[in-house]
Amino acid sequence: MTYLHDKSIAKHLHAAPTIILVKPQLGENIGSVARVMLNFGVTELRIVSPRDGWPNVKACSTASGAGSLLDKATVFESVADACADLNFVFSTTARNRGLTKNVKPPEVAMQEAATLLTDGLRVGILFGPENSGLENAHVALTKTIVSVPVNPEFSSLNLAQCVGLIAYEWFKIKDGKLVEFKGDSLDLATFLEVEKFRDALVEILEKKNYFWPEDKRMSLMENLNNLIGRLSVTSADVRTLHGLVKALSK
Amino acid sequence: MTYLHDKSIAKHLHAAPTIILVKPQLGENIGSVARVMLNFGVTELRIVSPRDGWPNVKACSTASGAGSLLDKATVFESVADACADLNFVFSTTARNRGLTKNVKPPEVAMQEAATLLTDGLRVGILFGPENSGLENAHVALTKTIVSVPVNPEFSSLNLAQCVGLIAYEWFKIKDGKLVEFKGDSLDLATFLEVEKFRDALVEILEKKNYFWPEDKRMSLMENLNNLIGRLSVTSADVRTLHGLVKALSK
Repeated sequence: MTYLHDKSIAKHLHAAPTIILVKPQLGENIGSVARVMLNFGVTELRIVSPRDGWPNVKACSTASGAGSLLDKATVFESVADACADLNFVFSTTARNRGLTKNVKPPEVAMQEAATLLTDGLRVGILFGPENSGLENAHVALTKTIVSVPVNPEFSSLNLAQCVGLIAYEWFKIKDGKLVEFKGDSLDLATFLEVEKFRDALVEILEKKNYFWPEDKRMSLMENLNNLIGRLSVTSADVRTLHGLVKALSK
Repeated sequence: MTYLHDKSIAKHLHAAPTIILVKPQLGENIGSVARVMLNFGVTELRIVSPRDGWPNVKACSTASGAGSLLDKATVFESVADACADLNFVFSTTARNRGLTKNVKPPEVAMQEAATLLTDGLRVGILFGPENSGLENAHVALTKTIVSVPVNPEFSSLNLAQCVGLIAYEWFKIKDGKLVEFKGDSLDLATFLEVEKFRDALVEILEKKNYFWPEDKRMSLMENLNNLIGRLSVTSADVRTLHGLVKALSK
C-alpha cells in the first residue's frame, strides 16, 4: 500500500501528529488510546503526569497488540515540556471555553496538520484528563482547538474514542492522497522558543506591575497566554520579539 | 442548533440508521456502543442473540447516560428477524470476504444512507461479535459492505470504536452537508486598528533607539512590519498589545 506519489513529500510524511495525553487517569484508557492510534498509523505518544505513574500494567492489558507504542511513550512533568520541540500544537475541547481561538472540526484540523508535516514541521495534539478535559491554561498555550462535532444534547465521548476519531481523520487524509505540496512556508518556532519568550516577557511585566490589581492577575495572564499561544511566529520573529521587549523596557 | 433547512427532508431525517449488533459477547461493549451512538444522534439499537442474555447489568454500567437506548433496544433471535422491516442493510467487515459485494468507506456509505432515509426508507447496519466479526452468511444477506480504512499492518478496532466511526460519519453528513459545521471564528481586528498599534509602537521604539544603527533602520523596520502584518489578532488583542507596550515602556 503506497500513500504517496512523491518521494520528496514522503520524506516528511513518515511523521504523523504526536498525541499528548495530559494527566490521564486510568491506565486502561492509555492502553486503549495506543491501540486505536496504531489502527490509524499514529505512533508517537507522550504522557504528561499520568495519575497512576508510569509504566502502568493496566495500560498494557488494553493496548492489545499496540504495546510497542507504550514502550516508546515518553513521560513529561508539564505540558510545556511535552510540547517543547513541537511547532504547532492543537488542543481538544468538547465545549467552547470562551477563549479567543480558532475552533476546527477534525478533518479540517488534520488537513492543516498534514500541510504542516509536509513542510517538515512537528505537530502535536493535546487531550485532557477523562473527567474534566483540558484546563483553560493549557488550551491557551495552543494555536487552534479541534472539536469533534457531537449531539449537542449528549456529548460524552471517551478519551480513546476522541483520539480515535481524530486519528481516523488523519489517516483518511494521509491515505487519501490529499496532501498538497506547499511552496514557501513559515518556519514556525518551536513551543520551547515561544515559551522562553513568554517567560522573559512575563518577568519584565511583573517588574512593571502589569499584572495588577491582584484580582485581575489570573485573567490578565490567561489573556496574555492565549494571545501568545495563537501567534504563528518563526524563530527569527521570536528573536525580534525579544529585541522589542528589551528595547521597550529600557 | 438547527441541522436542516428543508422541512421535507427533516420529516424523514429524524430517522437515523438502525445499529444491529449480531451475537455481541460482553455487556460492557453493548453499553459502550449505546454511549457512542447517542453522541452522534443514532438512537435505535437492535441486538441479535446476545451471548449473556438481555437485559444485561454490565451494559448499563458502561452506557454512561445513554441507558435510555438500552431500555428501548429490541432483541431478536436471528439476523433475518432483526432486519425484517428494513429496506437497506449494510454489513461491516474488517477484511475482504471474497464475496461479490460493493465495499464502501464510512463516509460514502453514510451519504448513501442519508439519501435512502431522505426517501423514507429504513436503513440498518450490522456489526458482528467482538472476536470474529460477522459470518459470511450474514454479510451475504446485506446489500453493501462498509469498511473502515485502517493501518493494513494493525487492524484492531473494538466494537464501540467501529460503531462510533460510522455513526460519526453519519452525524457529519446529517449535520454537515446541510448546515456546515462552523467553528468559532476569530473576530479579526481591522487593518486600521493594527496600523494605529504599529504607529504607537514605532513612536515608542524611536524614543528607545530601537532603529539603530541608522544603516539597519530599513531592515529593522521591514522586519517589524512583516511580523505585525502577519499577526492574526482581534480588536481585543490589539487593546492588550497597547497595554503591554505601555507597561513595558514605563
